[in-house]
Amino acid sequence: MSHERRTERPDPPAAWLPSTPVAPKRVLTPQADDFPRWYQDVINRAELAENGPVRGTMVIRPYAYAIWEHMQAEVDARLKATGAENAYFPLFIPEEYLTREAEHVEGFSPELAVVTHAGGNELEHPVVVRPTSETVIGEFMSKWIQSHRDLPMLLNQWSNVVRWEKRPRIFLRTSEFLWQEGHTAHASEEEANRYAVRILHEVYADFMEEYLAIPVIRGRKIPQERFPGATNTLTCESMMRDGKALQMGTSHELGQNFAKAFDIGYQGADGRRSLAWTTSWGVSTRMMGGLIMAHGDDAGLRVPPKVAGTQAVVMVVRDDDHDRVGKAARYLAGDLVGRGIRAKVDDNVDTGFGRRATAWELKGVPVRIEMGPRDLDEGVAVIVRRDSGEKTPVPTVEVAGRVAELLDEIQQALFDEALSFQQSRTADVATVADAIEAGATGFARLPWSAVGDAGLDELGKHAITVRCLLSADGGVAESDDGDDLIAVVGRSY
Amino acid sequence: MSHERRTERPDPPAAWLPSTPVAPKRVLTPQADDFPRWYQDVINRAELAENGPVRGTMVIRPYAYAIWEHMQAEVDARLKATGAENAYFPLFIPEEYLTREAEHVEGFSPELAVVTHAGGNELEHPVVVRPTSETVIGEFMSKWIQSHRDLPMLLNQWSNVVRWEKRPRIFLRTSEFLWQEGHTAHASEEEANRYAVRILHEVYADFMEEYLAIPVIRGRKIPQERFPGATNTLTCESMMRDGKALQMGTSHELGQNFAKAFDIGYQGADGRRSLAWTTSWGVSTRMMGGLIMAHGDDAGLRVPPKVAGTQAVVMVVRDDDHDRVGKAARYLAGDLVGRGIRAKVDDNVDTGFGRRATAWELKGVPVRIEMGPRDLDEGVAVIVRRDSGEKTPVPTVEVAGRVAELLDEIQQALFDEALSFQQSRTADVATVADAIEAGATGFARLPWSAVGDAGLDELGKHAITVRCLLSADGGVAESDDGDDLIAVVGRSY
Repeated sequence: MSHERRTERPDPPAAWLPSTPVAPKRVLTPQADDFPRWYQDVINRAELAENGPVRGTMVIRPYAYAIWEHMQAEVDARLKATGAENAYFPLFIPEEYLTREAEHVEGFSPELAVVTHAGGNELEHPVVVRPTSETVIGEFMSKWIQSHRDLPMLLNQWSNVVRWEKRPRIFLRTSEFLWQEGHTAHASEEEANRYAVRILHEVYADFMEEYLAIPVIRGRKIPQERFPGATNTLTCESMMRDGKALQMGTSHELGQNFAKAFDIGYQGADGRRSLAWTTSWGVSTRMMGGLIMAHGDDAGLRVPPKVAGTQAVVMVVRDDDHDRVGKAARYLAGDLVGRGIRAKVDDNVDTGFGRRATAWELKGVPVRIEMGPRDLDEGVAVIVRRDSGEKTPVPTVEVAGRVAELLDEIQQALFDEALSFQQSRTADVATVADAIEAGATGFARLPWSAVGDAGLDELGKHAITVRCLLSADGGVAESDDGDDLIAVVGRSY
Repeated sequence: MSHERRTERPDPPAAWLPSTPVAPKRVLTPQADDFPRWYQDVINRAELAENGPVRGTMVIRPYAYAIWEHMQAEVDARLKATGAENAYFPLFIPEEYLTREAEHVEGFSPELAVVTHAGGNELEHPVVVRPTSETVIGEFMSKWIQSHRDLPMLLNQWSNVVRWEKRPRIFLRTSEFLWQEGHTAHASEEEANRYAVRILHEVYADFMEEYLAIPVIRGRKIPQERFPGATNTLTCESMMRDGKALQMGTSHELGQNFAKAFDIGYQGADGRRSLAWTTSWGVSTRMMGGLIMAHGDDAGLRVPPKVAGTQAVVMVVRDDDHDRVGKAARYLAGDLVGRGIRAKVDDNVDTGFGRRATAWELKGVPVRIEMGPRDLDEGVAVIVRRDSGEKTPVPTVEVAGRVAELLDEIQQALFDEALSFQQSRTADVATVADAIEAGATGFARLPWSAVGDAGLDELGKHAITVRCLLSADGGVAESDDGDDLIAVVGRSY
């Protein structure tokens, strides 16, 4: 593609750097004023999602769904690397399945949606819309597993689930959400534990840190906070920019509870029959909420490059004759795409430049490349980083290479920023009283032995909960009790 | 990895070629005896799927789900290439939405599943589990589309839908199934038509022929067979190995019916408001049924290489000392994987070789590579094609390259075989009586003008329907009537 000859018409008077408004009109409620409202504003203005027509449900719009697809692809690849295989189990579950495991039914019964009519008739046995597929997968594992040679059985499913929410909030708590749920059966407790721990670290925490650029604290849930039916719940906890915790993903050991309830047994090499040990684990569209609240700022979303649907947008600032700038912009975008960068062109010059720049900021596209007629004459384009706002004129021929480097830098910068924020808002304290003070703006770490039942109650009065337990060295606690355990506490979503 | 030294122990007496049983024990009902039973047998024995606990639902097992994932990936890439963007709309739809478009509600009401209780209470307004998302997407398009600049809007969704089935059949008719549904809005009828036609050819038919190796007839549905609310339904029809037709995918023009019902309008460049023209289109897990029935034979499934989860399996026939053959097999599999071939090793020598070979045949893995101690000494492995059964000893060093070529050959051979089968079972006839005769074993093509209402009734008595209308030159008919149109008729699933 060749550039058109330079126009004879002088460029209109304008600053040399394209004029993004210095003090843009406020498009969002500032985070410091009202964080929940900022969150809702971003979701609306960046066209991420909307409430569905049935209360508590959500519509995920293309811009957010593209991010979810990148999350899915990476989590899926990591799950497959651990040996898990994808399958699909039905949406509808007999009510009776949920009652087989006592804790499980108690955990879910207030949240169930029930189908009573279908095919024009009232159903003889109403069916439940899955709140999770634990039970139905247990039922089939029981059929499929006969011998020790069938173990481990490592299944995963990507699906929608329904848990009726009284106080819904888009991405964080919706009556329907999308997730993956893994369910495995093993011959020994030790192996089940090893696998649940592997999912926690290699699949979830590492993905969240490397891809979502969100530092996570990996720990053990206290018994009161476990998944219904689990003997051990491992969690990834992260800090949002209001200092509150978000549980981003969990990995559960279920002991033999579900194996007993669903008769998941196997014949060993010695011919004796034993019960299996099962695990389950999941991450959901809730991670989208985490991504928004861990990185967003007063100008909007900041999407980590690795999961961005659009990593770079080439903006035609203003065009002159014969679409000269448009052509150059499309040529550059083609170059970026050729390097594997997810790039697009914004040549919608009918809309004011400032308004468009603001919109891309709102959407959090990691890199903007601004090109105007004068830039083209000078042989440069201006690269704008969304994370820092930094603007750099770069010779046109170097732009594509520079953008590729920048995407890595931005990925790292977002992580570093989130990590230092989390660290600056986390206090090491010795008493529940000090933990309550620290918990007003962030997390506190304190000796678990200093909490006790009375301490839990006291924290609860301030809406503070134990997010997880760590061992003395900061690793995942390996038991519910122990003198040297550390409790991480904070307010949470 | 180095091979162990050759064992001194002589090979056991065995035919030079590994002993796959010449007349294997019948594991499936032969197709010619009872095709529906053969279908169900394959689904069970190849571990593709099972009935779910709630009648009409299905569990898709990992082997089949991997094939579905390859189908999804390719269809998704093709949809994105047309400009469609993925999004997600809720499972639950207000009942009232379905009644807005008269034909639509009539089409679906006997199939709906209704949630009447949720969150522990009876719902004031019962909600429907989506049978399709036409209505809810229409509702949101109405909000999102304001100006002609918002058009075309090209949305797609991968999801589960529910249509209560009285006579369920796995993959073909299940109360819940997985699919993609696309919904688009355009400024003109012509543009909507062009897009619906593009989906038919570039996304669906081409994918089915290139990836599923299933030849399809592309045509127009007669008014009685259209999607509820559509003004034109385009279809991909294929022939199964019992001569019956399977509708594999459809693309609909909805005219302005949904735009009217949901008020999907836009302001033109001239400032005047007009109604949009919408389309919708979908393919589902039903394609799995098509894949099974278009290619399977009396030994089981035959999976086209492009969508096979496992393209090649390296079988350790029998091992001698120190896992010598096992090591060579794993080395070869590594080589195959390195070339991008989805390969795995079967070194489960505790199970008899014949039984394992039969199992891989059942599952329809395109290529088996058999390696035994004697083969290794001779420096060869035996490649077995699933499609033709042909066995060829090949020098070990050439195996990987040969397998890569074979996968292409098998892909083509399966298509060619299906095409000549379809052609051999399709008769050109002039009368309804002759069409009825031809329809007993396959398809008939006859002048549409020779059918008429009486002809439709007559065909119907023999369970024969018009699959689609073609133009005189064999292309897609562009109207419902016309002297030179050709009707393709047959029995169908």
